Amino acid sequence: MSVLVVGSVALDSVETPFGKADNVLGGSGNFFAASASHLSPVQLVGVIGSDYPIDKLERAFASRPIDLAGLEHADGTSFRWRGRYRHDLNVAETLETHLGVFSNFRPKIPEQFRNAPFVFLGNIDPRLQLDVLTQVAKPKLVACDTMNFWIESRRADILKLLEHVDLITLNDAEARQLTDEYNLIRAARWIMARGPKHVVIKKGEHGAFMFTASSIFFAPAYPLEAVFDPTGAGDSFAGGFMGYLARTGDMSEANLRRAVVYGSAMGSFAVEKFSVDRLLEITPADIKSRVADFHRLITFEQDLA
Amino acid sequence: MSVLVVGSVALDSVETPFGKADNVLGGSGNFFAASASHLSPVQLVGVIGSDYPIDKLERAFASRPIDLAGLEHADGTSFRWRGRYRHDLNVAETLETHLGVFSNFRPKIPEQFRNAPFVFLGNIDPRLQLDVLTQVAKPKLVACDTMNFWIESRRADILKLLEHVDLITLNDAEARQLTDEYNLIRAARWIMARGPKHVVIKKGEHGAFMFTASSIFFAPAYPLEAVFDPTGAGDSFAGGFMGYLARTGDMSEANLRRAVVYGSAMGSFAVEKFSVDRLLEITPADIKSRVADFHRLITFEQDLA
Repeated sequence: MSVLVVGSVALDSVETPFGKADNVLGGSGNFFAASASHLSPVQLVGVIGSDYPIDKLERAFASRPIDLAGLEHADGTSFRWRGRYRHDLNVAETLETHLGVFSNFRPKIPEQFRNAPFVFLGNIDPRLQLDVLTQVAKPKLVACDTMNFWIESRRADILKLLEHVDLITLNDAEARQLTDEYNLIRAARWIMARGPKHVVIKKGEHGAFMFTASSIFFAPAYPLEAVFDPTGAGDSFAGGFMGYLARTGDMSEANLRRAVVYGSAMGSFAVEKFSVDRLLEITPADIKSRVADFHRLITFEQDLA
Repeated sequence: MSVLVVGSVALDSVETPFGKADNVLGGSGNFFAASASHLSPVQLVGVIGSDYPIDKLERAFASRPIDLAGLEHADGTSFRWRGRYRHDLNVAETLETHLGVFSNFRPKIPEQFRNAPFVFLGNIDPRLQLDVLTQVAKPKLVACDTMNFWIESRRADILKLLEHVDLITLNDAEARQLTDEYNLIRAARWIMARGPKHVVIKKGEHGAFMFTASSIFFAPAYPLEAVFDPTGAGDSFAGGFMGYLARTGDMSEANLRRAVVYGSAMGSFAVEKFSVDRLLEITPADIKSRVADFHRLITFEQDLA
């Protein structure tokens, strides 16, 4: 089954302690698509300006099952983000955000995408996320992401959105901001009371929790000896998670747990190189091997004596 | 088998967002002993001043297999610590440290403790930790803890100590400070190159890693809805870890992993009440149940398709 993602298609300029990259493929939509496409077909909806290196994007995604029919070409400049990380790679320092055509983005879901069984509403204005939901038929699972900016400026819309999604992914700071609960269990319960059956709280290098009404699952971030560039880790996580669900079509708790691990695995690949570079070169064997590594990392046998 | 611990026996005054406690039983030795004694007999070596409420300590430990024969009664005042936590319970704000008799502490290991098979050198001057090792016969496992203060002021002694211990526990900031490596995998490797076969890096609410030459194991901190007072979590972790090893006497990788989980379980109990209060009231069934909860928290079945 395929997964529809609505997100940003941007150009990133990033500086880390290990190097720098200028105007490389970035944005939540690109990272999500590069990640999820290892597991299921992806339909990408976003907008680019007339300055976007579309040939570069098409070459990058050429061998992947990513349908770009929903990529709107608008007059104006593309969304650009410039940021820097110091040694604490958990914290991005935004140096410049240029929204360009993204500021007037109104997602239009192509006819042939409207029956997508899995829908991921990337981090855009919650009013647009709600609008996307009016354009799709009844999906099997709708998930959304959000960020501090929208939580502050569009709180009422986020609360409305929560009534219409099955799952939300957000980071720990955002969960606290949204719910005014410092404790993440309470924060997750607060969110679940407003709609979503599942809440995934990402803690960056400290892993991710998945909460349901009756259980908590935790997956660590895979410990890497060299994290090169953390940009896009969260979106790659979401891509792996949704891609795995779309591939299997199984919404059991056991399968959702595996989906979290696939998300973590894809996030761990994303940070090994700049942009989507590493996500584009990995093979199914690499993914399988990383998931097995995850299993070794956390497995212990209970002493039943 | 029994475990010998050398550590502080203090009086804590703690303020958290949830309440305050004055002059309660504290110190690494007390937390370690209260925790480990659920799993194996404990021999506690430490020092208290003439003001210490020894009757209170004896009552607290009366029903537990904790031998206090190594507790030196010195003239002077006891070690006192006063601290505060705000909502980020990962960060303790020290308001006052009064070392008292602890500043002249020279651990004397009683004759009957010198064959202890498991030895834990709590966080004291590394010169004293080394001195303890001259007083014990060949233990099956020696582990040590340390802190930023000693890493800064007694670096050469810590490096010497590393040559004589099998395992070290320290937190992520301390590991970085000691090794000058930001990455924890590199930090652990740096430490292992200097002696210890195992390195346990504690990340507070973000869990703990155990590194060996050929593997990494990770256990999350157990997610609690109400963390009441984080004081002593690390020492309770060490107590659970060492206590489990002493109970089983098994140094296999699989058993060391279980020991980390027992450590995490005991740490998670410690923070549910002030002082050692919760550690003193839990039952073997509570511990077994928490370990099972840990297993549910992190378990996923690999998709071998």
